[in-house]
Amino acid sequence: MGRILVIHGPNLNLLGTREPEVYGSTTLAEIDAMLHELGQELGIEVESFQSNHEGAIIDAIHGARGRCDGILINPGAFTHYALAIRDAISAVGLPVVEVHLSNIHSREPFRHRSVIAPVAVGTIAGFGSDSYLLGLRALANRIRSQR
Amino acid sequence: MGRILVIHGPNLNLLGTREPEVYGSTTLAEIDAMLHELGQELGIEVESFQSNHEGAIIDAIHGARGRCDGILINPGAFTHYALAIRDAISAVGLPVVEVHLSNIHSREPFRHRSVIAPVAVGTIAGFGSDSYLLGLRALANRIRSQR
Amino acid sequence: MGRILVIHGPNLNLLGTREPEVYGSTTLAEIDAMLHELGQELGIEVESFQSNHEGAIIDAIHGARGRCDGILINPGAFTHYALAIRDAISAVGLPVVEVHLSNIHSREPFRHRSVIAPVAVGTIAGFGSDSYLLGLRALANRIRSQR
Amino acid sequence: MGRILVIHGPNLNLLGTREPEVYGSTTLAEIDAMLHELGQELGIEVESFQSNHEGAIIDAIHGARGRCDGILINPGAFTHYALAIRDAISAVGLPVVEVHLSNIHSREPFRHRSVIAPVAVGTIAGFGSDSYLLGLRALANRIRSQR
Amino acid sequence: MGRILVIHGPNLNLLGTREPEVYGSTTLAEIDAMLHELGQELGIEVESFQSNHEGAIIDAIHGARGRCDGILINPGAFTHYALAIRDAISAVGLPVVEVHLSNIHSREPFRHRSVIAPVAVGTIAGFGSDSYLLGLRALANRIRSQR
Amino acid sequence: MGRILVIHGPNLNLLGTREPEVYGSTTLAEIDAMLHELGQELGIEVESFQSNHEGAIIDAIHGARGRCDGILINPGAFTHYALAIRDAISAVGLPVVEVHLSNIHSREPFRHRSVIAPVAVGTIAGFGSDSYLLGLRALANRIRSQR
Amino acid sequence: MGRILVIHGPNLNLLGTREPEVYGSTTLAEIDAMLHELGQELGIEVESFQSNHEGAIIDAIHGARGRCDGILINPGAFTHYALAIRDAISAVGLPVVEVHLSNIHSREPFRHRSVIAPVAVGTIAGFGSDSYLLGLRALANRIRSQR
Amino acid sequence: MGRILVIHGPNLNLLGTREPEVYGSTTLAEIDAMLHELGQELGIEVESFQSNHEGAIIDAIHGARGRCDGILINPGAFTHYALAIRDAISAVGLPVVEVHLSNIHSREPFRHRSVIAPVAVGTIAGFGSDSYLLGLRALANRIRSQR
Amino acid sequence: MGRILVIHGPNLNLLGTREPEVYGSTTLAEIDAMLHELGQELGIEVESFQSNHEGAIIDAIHGARGRCDGILINPGAFTHYALAIRDAISAVGLPVVEVHLSNIHSREPFRHRSVIAPVAVGTIAGFGSDSYLLGLRALANRIRSQR
Amino acid sequence: MGRILVIHGPNLNLLGTREPEVYGSTTLAEIDAMLHELGQELGIEVESFQSNHEGAIIDAIHGARGRCDGILINPGAFTHYALAIRDAISAVGLPVVEVHLSNIHSREPFRHRSVIAPVAVGTIAGFGSDSYLLGLRALANRIRSQR
Amino acid sequence: MGRILVIHGPNLNLLGTREPEVYGSTTLAEIDAMLHELGQELGIEVESFQSNHEGAIIDAIHGARGRCDGILINPGAFTHYALAIRDAISAVGLPVVEVHLSNIHSREPFRHRSVIAPVAVGTIAGFGSDSYLLGLRALANRIRSQR
Amino acid sequence: MGRILVIHGPNLNLLGTREPEVYGSTTLAEIDAMLHELGQELGIEVESFQSNHEGAIIDAIHGARGRCDGILINPGAFTHYALAIRDAISAVGLPVVEVHLSNIHSREPFRHRSVIAPVAVGTIAGFGSDSYLLGLRALANRIRSQR
Repeated sequence: MGRILVIHGPNLNLLGTREPEVYGSTTLAEIDAMLHELGQELGIEVESFQSNHEGAIIDAIHGARGRCDGILINPGAFTHYALAIRDAISAVGLPVVEVHLSNIHSREPFRHRSVIAPVAVGTIAGFGSDSYLLGLRALANRIRSQR
Repeated sequence: MGRILVIHGPNLNLLGTREPEVYGSTTLAEIDAMLHELGQELGIEVESFQSNHEGAIIDAIHGARGRCDGILINPGAFTHYALAIRDAISAVGLPVVEVHLSNIHSREPFRHRSVIAPVAVGTIAGFGSDSYLLGLRALANRIRSQR
Repeated sequence: MGRILVIHGPNLNLLGTREPEVYGSTTLAEIDAMLHELGQELGIEVESFQSNHEGAIIDAIHGARGRCDGILINPGAFTHYALAIRDAISAVGLPVVEVHLSNIHSREPFRHRSVIAPVAVGTIAGFGSDSYLLGLRALANRIRSQR
Repeated sequence: MGRILVIHGPNLNLLGTREPEVYGSTTLAEIDAMLHELGQELGIEVESFQSNHEGAIIDAIHGARGRCDGILINPGAFTHYALAIRDAISAVGLPVVEVHLSNIHSREPFRHRSVIAPVAVGTIAGFGSDSYLLGLRALANRIRSQR
Repeated sequence: MGRILVIHGPNLNLLGTREPEVYGSTTLAEIDAMLHELGQELGIEVESFQSNHEGAIIDAIHGARGRCDGILINPGAFTHYALAIRDAISAVGLPVVEVHLSNIHSREPFRHRSVIAPVAVGTIAGFGSDSYLLGLRALANRIRSQR
Repeated sequence: MGRILVIHGPNLNLLGTREPEVYGSTTLAEIDAMLHELGQELGIEVESFQSNHEGAIIDAIHGARGRCDGILINPGAFTHYALAIRDAISAVGLPVVEVHLSNIHSREPFRHRSVIAPVAVGTIAGFGSDSYLLGLRALANRIRSQR
Repeated sequence: MGRILVIHGPNLNLLGTREPEVYGSTTLAEIDAMLHELGQELGIEVESFQSNHEGAIIDAIHGARGRCDGILINPGAFTHYALAIRDAISAVGLPVVEVHLSNIHSREPFRHRSVIAPVAVGTIAGFGSDSYLLGLRALANRIRSQR
Repeated sequence: MGRILVIHGPNLNLLGTREPEVYGSTTLAEIDAMLHELGQELGIEVESFQSNHEGAIIDAIHGARGRCDGILINPGAFTHYALAIRDAISAVGLPVVEVHLSNIHSREPFRHRSVIAPVAVGTIAGFGSDSYLLGLRALANRIRSQR
Repeated sequence: MGRILVIHGPNLNLLGTREPEVYGSTTLAEIDAMLHELGQELGIEVESFQSNHEGAIIDAIHGARGRCDGILINPGAFTHYALAIRDAISAVGLPVVEVHLSNIHSREPFRHRSVIAPVAVGTIAGFGSDSYLLGLRALANRIRSQR
Repeated sequence: MGRILVIHGPNLNLLGTREPEVYGSTTLAEIDAMLHELGQELGIEVESFQSNHEGAIIDAIHGARGRCDGILINPGAFTHYALAIRDAISAVGLPVVEVHLSNIHSREPFRHRSVIAPVAVGTIAGFGSDSYLLGLRALANRIRSQR
Repeated sequence: MGRILVIHGPNLNLLGTREPEVYGSTTLAEIDAMLHELGQELGIEVESFQSNHEGAIIDAIHGARGRCDGILINPGAFTHYALAIRDAISAVGLPVVEVHLSNIHSREPFRHRSVIAPVAVGTIAGFGSDSYLLGLRALANRIRSQR
Repeated sequence: MGRILVIHGPNLNLLGTREPEVYGSTTLAEIDAMLHELGQELGIEVESFQSNHEGAIIDAIHGARGRCDGILINPGAFTHYALAIRDAISAVGLPVVEVHLSNIHSREPFRHRSVIAPVAVGTIAGFGSDSYLLGLRALANRIRSQR
């Protein structure tokens, strides 16, 4: 059995109430519950963390070393500039899957570029809360196949 | 029950034998079999098509109109320049999910840009043959939720 | 009396049903009929061809050499990258008029650049099916003035 | 019956004598006469204005409001930078057709970009004085179809 | 007591009737009246000038030398390219405040760049007619503090 | 009566002592006192917050939801890259006015671009502590006009 | 004997009083007198014109056709964007020498690019009022050598 | 003894008749004959293929796997954008030599960039039909040296 | 005798265990010990601080004012975007030396640009833990020479 | 019979010992011997020159005028910036063939651009010492065909 | 009386024989003679130096310090990249005038940028050998006015 | 004991007299003396070379092979374009440390990019003559650690 850290980046605490036409009406608690449930089905313990602080997210990534088998991250707007998060991911050496609720490629140009993606295993974007669930499956398969 | 057209773009017919360190050793037939199997589980009929011809892929997209409920496409290298495929997707108005075997964001810069993604529902990249299976799930959920 | 080849590029076969808010509700057959009628008025035989295949369009341009007096082309999305069509036009040495249904300059930035226009006699864009009719007039005048 | 204002931008007063290998030998007066004649055929009153002053062209566009049904403009070199003319066109809300004598896409790179085109109905370029006549037809059709 | 020249750039004469969803429904005369009134309150004589001619605006800026204590300017579309106005401002050495009715940073990319701003004291944008009133206050304070 | 949150970004706690030739000699406490005083005059309760932490500023913006009627923000150097602050502003849906002490357009090129401005109501820059006072007026008017 | 039209662009009427550290303290009248004097020495009649209006400068260039043998122009800030002046120069076919008081290559980047220079015979920049005198010599030699 | 597939890209079927000032007057059949003859001299069987269809060229490259020892390709205009041909070359793992009749570096800027060259052994351009013959020699040597 | 604050940026807490092929196997504690030792030799008291939080680093820089004589900083990934740290350095007016363990110029392009360097005294990169020791020497000399 | 000057640019004197994985193990003397031998076969006298000095290479190109029939040059790193060598080639008017040992298009981006190629007859790259031999053949044919 | 060093850059030794349609048919010796003659008229001793070696030109510039009053330089192709010559000019602190025979602004884009011009007093381009004579006058005036 | 070659690039012979506000007043001879002295302390023989000729610097780098253990280079303005020096460093395979007197990152933009740095061990900039001494220490440590 494995353990995965789910990291929700900045402004995701407002999910469900923030711009629902872009991000949907599901709340972060509901997403965490869905992830927990799917985790049980896949034999994966899911642990969740949200912060609006880049430094706190880096600390959380560091803290996952030796304790978790992978990280599922929605970096929010940090996707586009937080190179220190990218370096944290390289540093801990865990498989990381990047997910986005919206299709970042059909939004403003600055959202098309991810500084995180090059160090992730892969990315999933555009499926609302489903992006998280698909990401959990992808990460679980990846962890299983590496054993 | 729904029906999904899976389109494999150029050079994917060589899968399993072509640069296995980048694309893995699973063949296209094996991927199609896995998609078929998952489709049955999800109540989705899966139909598969491969071509190295941009025009043939456009024809296939047109042909899906009124006959399929969505398209799962790995556009291969066409991802980066085939604007006529992009227009075909806009034209038929079906939900389209874009998948890639490799993480295109950690490869050559020209592979970072997708002209297809802005008209897709979402994208999944980096999980090998799993990208297809996750894409099928995403598309199935999407079709189900739109009914 | 002269003869003109009309080439309709990718996705134009769907005209009338595809995104009517962008491309209008006239079908390709109706446009061909209007061109035929105006051709008769102008003493021009009009021959029409549609393909979603870049190669087939190149073959058609080659085939017009020695048989037609000019080409009226709506290259669709090929406008923006199909340099092989551009070279075909240079190669056959016939006068070519480029037309577009929509005003490509008020759409996405990638539609602002035409790789075909520099080797065309001129371009007409933004007038719906009228773009074709104006283009036929322009080409007929051009052919007449060169005799 | 409608009324159209034809605006000739900077240096077009020299037409016929200026660089005839680029712009042809027809004079501006001859073009105005042809437009007048075609206007009669189409049931359109044609009024013509030339200026080398950006401000005077803006004043003329303002003056057309409530008095004309559309504007046919050859902005000359103002095409490439006169954003105040662009705003004037947006402000008066009349349909505007942009025409060019030469094929601006086969000339210097700075002539490839039009700041006017995005707010025009459409553009016609490359057919010498025919560009004006085609533009008048296009505008007349447009005005007729909007009634 | 001081004197300020207010310069309204191209197309602002149409204010109130031009694209009210962008620029509001207040007319230029109403703005001038509000400025006059606020000027009285602040002990500032306000003089107003509108032109669609870049040259006339330069002449007006020159004319303010030795006669006014500052200039409040809404350069309209000249904001983005009229370097000769920029040089005029540098030449006369008067404090200049640049105002815009709309938030130019949330509009088309070409409106994000001001060639005037680097030689202005400061800029105010996005508050409709309030931009002018805030600008007058800013300029009045600036003039007062320099005595 | 309304309530406005004033947010001072990174390094503004040093105001008055930091590079006075660029930022003036007024301290942040003095600016807060002036804002409080003007607020009373305008019938606006003013609450002030300073932080050098991007995450803390995002938390403060979130906290203003349902409690304040608008936000006045000087994002300091975060202006140029803190996309997570931009998203926080979009997320809470409150009117935001962006102010700068110095004229950012006459300083280093990297200071010319604001990632915040496109989601603000408007921006005011270049008037020292007056920028804040003008911004408070602008925001108060905006809030009043929306009731 | 020949005749040369000297054109002084925008803001040059302020010469001698405007930013003397950049442009020197000689007035435009003094420069014209020096040019007149050198013209007599070289057997050249010198005629001078200043305007802040782009359109007026274009009119003046047109007016030189058939009446003058060359044009000496300091386009001021129009140097960097007034493509209509460039076209006017091409249109009249007279030899044109471009001069600048200051060394435009050691000033702001936007002053490094001249849209006029490619259609001029040559350019002279950086020598204060001497730039004009050297330009007159250059133009006189050029006219003489072409006879 | 080895076998080489020669691929002629789009528009090369017109060789000898198309723009002879750029491409020379030798026909494709004549080039194939020369290659055949040199092949015999070098102990290399030469097989030739021309197509205007990108997809057909990809199919031909795939078909060479296990049957040929190398590929000599003149990709014509596909050189500059056909990334799917590039991927096909990587996929089959055969040594490929890229040739061009004209010196692509002294023509239009868009012809300076080859998306094929990075996966080729080497490139030869500018020597007319000699480019093919030199390319055959280079490829023959390469194949010989790898045994 | 002087005092220097050493600031270690994000992810440097993992030093010695993180990607040793890039960053070496020395731990941060070992580097601090070496700095302390060299400090004693140079008569410099060395104080060390590590944080993954941009805001905490800014607070630390502020706190050094009036207490330290210089700052030695390895900004980690903050090097490339943390403009607020740059402003903090300008604000406190202390001499700052920027060091990097790896040669940032031979790594990914985004690591070539430092937003900190322009406000630092100088930079040292590529010598592993030696970069810190050389930086301490450089800073000590600088402080000594300014007395 | 003809005479060809072979110019080896900077660092090529180290050939055979320098980075053999990039440039092979053949020495420059061996290449010169091979060129001499092939020259005899082709009836071409081959003269060879190596220098690390741009100026010396220019002098050598000048010296070839009137004495040689063509130049075979491997400009080494000068390929990418030595515009003075380009001008020397234009100046002497001899046919020049540019060769490279390695495939410059599959190396660092700065090696993709040649300032020499536009004035060369053609280029050959990627075939090790064979590039020189193929280049000699190409140049010999070219000289022969021009007689 | 003063002394001026004239530096002729690379390939100028071929003047008169090299591409006369671009550079004219006057030889360098003839230009030196003209400069000598004009120097005598102006009371300036003229000393001339030509080299194809960047280093030799730098040495010559250094050598002029304390011996000459100014430098007249035609840097040829070094104009566009030889930053070491630029630094030499800054280093010696002598007034430098940059001249070009041809109008570099109407030639290839790479010739539009001068790395020398920002540290020169001024530039003169486009007047053939007259550029040198005008440059000598300009420099003589400059030297005289600085005494 | 080791031996190090110190290379001083163009214009450094003028050190101490050239722009002392940028480069300080220490002469090159003084720097060489300091390096010699520190070398003795570190057990390193120091040999020094200055040239304004790129080719001579390349020759010197070549000459260090097999005779020296490392190179300390201040490439001066060659830093920014002399790719042939970069290739020479790669070719000889010796460890190289790049130093600069001034902080190149706070000067003109063209000085921010080093073509040498990617092939150096590391870089040191901004500490005046201390940059050399720190560089010697860094190189000595590097050589010692590699034994």
